[in-house]
Amino acid sequence: MEFTGLFCFLRSLIMRLKLTISYDGSSFQGWQSQPSRNTIQDHLEAALFRITSQAISVHGSGRTDAGVHALAQTAHFDVPATARLSLMNWQNALNANLPFTIRILRIQKVADTFHARFSAQAKIYRYQIITSCVMPPLDLPRAWHVPQKIDLDLLKDQIPCFIGTHDFRAFSAKRHKAPEDTIRTISSIRLRKAGSRLTFTFQGNGFLYKMVRMIMGGLIHVAQKRAAEDWIVQLLNSPGTASCTHVAPAHGLTLMRVLY
Amino acid sequence: MEFTGLFCFLRSLIMRLKLTISYDGSSFQGWQSQPSRNTIQDHLEAALFRITSQAISVHGSGRTDAGVHALAQTAHFDVPATARLSLMNWQNALNANLPFTIRILRIQKVADTFHARFSAQAKIYRYQIITSCVMPPLDLPRAWHVPQKIDLDLLKDQIPCFIGTHDFRAFSAKRHKAPEDTIRTISSIRLRKAGSRLTFTFQGNGFLYKMVRMIMGGLIHVAQKRAAEDWIVQLLNSPGTASCTHVAPAHGLTLMRVLY
Repeated sequence: MEFTGLFCFLRSLIMRLKLTISYDGSSFQGWQSQPSRNTIQDHLEAALFRITSQAISVHGSGRTDAGVHALAQTAHFDVPATARLSLMNWQNALNANLPFTIRILRIQKVADTFHARFSAQAKIYRYQIITSCVMPPLDLPRAWHVPQKIDLDLLKDQIPCFIGTHDFRAFSAKRHKAPEDTIRTISSIRLRKAGSRLTFTFQGNGFLYKMVRMIMGGLIHVAQKRAAEDWIVQLLNSPGTASCTHVAPAHGLTLMRVLY
Repeated sequence: MEFTGLFCFLRSLIMRLKLTISYDGSSFQGWQSQPSRNTIQDHLEAALFRITSQAISVHGSGRTDAGVHALAQTAHFDVPATARLSLMNWQNALNANLPFTIRILRIQKVADTFHARFSAQAKIYRYQIITSCVMPPLDLPRAWHVPQKIDLDLLKDQIPCFIGTHDFRAFSAKRHKAPEDTIRTISSIRLRKAGSRLTFTFQGNGFLYKMVRMIMGGLIHVAQKRAAEDWIVQLLNSPGTASCTHVAPAHGLTLMRVLY
């Protein structure tokens, strides 16, 4: 058997499954596996181990930080094609072995060329802010309370600065080596105001570590007139020199959808 | 000083304050004071004691059960008119002495004839249900998960049965002595469907103990074809003979507003 043939044969032995996962991030330490074992990835891999008695790696579309929620995160994992569970059984078995605050909403068989991270075309994130003097308790777990006066027109003026392709190094909490690592494209940021609730919806081809939270932190900082109006433009135009020093809290952020 | 004059004089010594209160009911044992001291009323009275060093009673518009939320519950209390705190100071002092999951949204000076309970004209409650197979974690704290098939047309047909003035004895968890105690008027029940989310909005002149939850339990029971289609009408038409045996869970219910 020639090499390609062998490769195809081995591939035929595995089945790749795509998960759509929702979680309340409040009680987890983010997506990515940690020594604490209290992350979404850890809980998924532990559930798979209980079901299959095998160590199976789960590959997410990307990390979410501790406290960040997901309406529909995606991930994939491989199982032997001989595994006899139906898709419905996989979903039920996983949910039966996960905390109620992590749920598999959907499970699909995908081609083995599919990769939750590398095949992703775009992501949609939502960030919520409550601007009233008193924080309504029912919004506590999902929104950032900003009771200090903000200039909404100034805030709206700043939003277009982020649209398009930029080196977002100043809006990332990680040290990146090469400049190309930090170039991302944000296709849209929509702002909806309903009473004292501001909802920002970000769509882009990818987001760096803490990027949405640092954009939100920067926007609010300028809108509170604590920084010059051109601060954001300066940060975007001179990557590597300074960083956005304000990071909005994690619990206001929700990963809404990953597009393929 | 004649009696009426004395009464007016004494009245002039007190100031009545109306509170608009929001709470996440998850971690409290309802509104009404309990030996556990972990109710909304207990927390409010404890906060008032810390502020004034006096035992001041708080009178709510009505009880909410353990686990029921409030977007805007109302209550009143009396303080000596000589108390030198401004309304803003009262609000800040109360919020500083309450858990974050109970917040005073508004405080107003009202006439001493105002009574949070007896002056209330109507109340608006909301009940949320999620009908998808898997319960989305972000809806867990605020909605009842009903994954079993329900006949939505049948459910909609039943709603008008509750509209109007009825003896709701069969939809109350308490033994009432006189029939007139259990007569209430529901002016509207609106149902909104958005995907797998059903939102019921009740407006009425008052609701008995567990009444909304028993109406919801009854509606879902019939819509799942576990009871005859005329079961609800029978329960309403023959108060005192049988009771609705199904009570929807508390966490799906939110007191939205009290109208005066």
